Amino acid sequence: MDLYDYFRSSASYRVRIGLNLKGIAPERHFIHLTRDGGEQFGKDFSRLNPQQLVPVLVDDGNAINQSLAILEYLDETHPEPPFLPATPAERARVRSLSLIIACDIHPIDNLRVLFYLRDVLGQEEEARNTWYRHWVAKGLEALEAALAGSDATGTFCHGDTPGLADICLVPQIFNAKRFDCLLDGYPTVMRIFDTCMAHPAFDAAQPAKQPDAE
Amino acid sequence: MDLYDYFRSSASYRVRIGLNLKGIAPERHFIHLTRDGGEQFGKDFSRLNPQQLVPVLVDDGNAINQSLAILEYLDETHPEPPFLPATPAERARVRSLSLIIACDIHPIDNLRVLFYLRDVLGQEEEARNTWYRHWVAKGLEALEAALAGSDATGTFCHGDTPGLADICLVPQIFNAKRFDCLLDGYPTVMRIFDTCMAHPAFDAAQPAKQPDAE
Repeated sequence: MDLYDYFRSSASYRVRIGLNLKGIAPERHFIHLTRDGGEQFGKDFSRLNPQQLVPVLVDDGNAINQSLAILEYLDETHPEPPFLPATPAERARVRSLSLIIACDIHPIDNLRVLFYLRDVLGQEEEARNTWYRHWVAKGLEALEAALAGSDATGTFCHGDTPGLADICLVPQIFNAKRFDCLLDGYPTVMRIFDTCMAHPAFDAAQPAKQPDAE
Repeated sequence: MDLYDYFRSSASYRVRIGLNLKGIAPERHFIHLTRDGGEQFGKDFSRLNPQQLVPVLVDDGNAINQSLAILEYLDETHPEPPFLPATPAERARVRSLSLIIACDIHPIDNLRVLFYLRDVLGQEEEARNTWYRHWVAKGLEALEAALAGSDATGTFCHGDTPGLADICLVPQIFNAKRFDCLLDGYPTVMRIFDTCMAHPAFDAAQPAKQPDAE
């Protein structure tokens, strides 16, 4: 198995956590992302992923992109320990929590969007940071309400074992801290974040501990 | 089964297509979305979905939000006809195509983001439309490359039966047309769109044919 990733990419961080939880050690390939001339625009990598984004997982000759598609794939091909609970209703809850982050926070705050705000719309750093924090706050408010309001929430987002929602939550909080977002209003989210970070699979996957970290 | 949706919401449109494909006719509840004072901000609906977004599906007492979580739930509880192919690698391909749209186009172009551009960043209509078209173009370029470059693409995004990727593709193209996006550069995407629109499940779910359409 081969993983193409970048230490600071939070979608890559999700997949690194997932691989660690499953006990899989892929061959690593580092794609250094920059605005212009970054390795994501190279011919070889573009063939692997026409979307020119990391992460990409290659298994058995199949290149898979999109972190959630990779994580579902890992869960189907390596069922233990499971990323998703047993019943359809519980699985829907965990997928929904995951998608609040993966659809409704992360893409809006992704690097290419921040570059557009700067380069095309001429927005200064303060306006870009306000943008970033706004979407984090909107998403985390919803996440906190969903987590705090449900008996299904345990030590982790769903019960007492880490799963897909935790895998999405941790990289988002990492990035939110990097952008100095206020996180006091989300006690359940932050309790789960702290629990995750004490888990070796989450800790070993963090950006600063990757071989390509600057 | 109860569906809370809004005719113009493209995430709702996805779920309507999915329900039609499965032959499920839920009880409909229409949530009229507006910038201020829209029904999505009401107390009852906020309790159902703290994220204050449509669609929400209620089944067996469980409220599920996030369209992809709803569609995976429908596929698990009503397996025929399947939204996803049989093997993990094929399923990963279909999920990945779906997420290119659901993560990397739609949320960045969603109504609340366009409102932020207008109300907070003071962007005029032309700049907002250019923004919209930019993210559609980035996403559809990637989708076209992925579809045109694979033997797995058939009459539909994967093989000759409609699935999750088609369910995501159609509402996105509908919205792209509404914003006058140029679509000439995506012949495979548009061929599949036309095939889908000739299918009654896709046609009956389109915004103009909903009871709450204006």
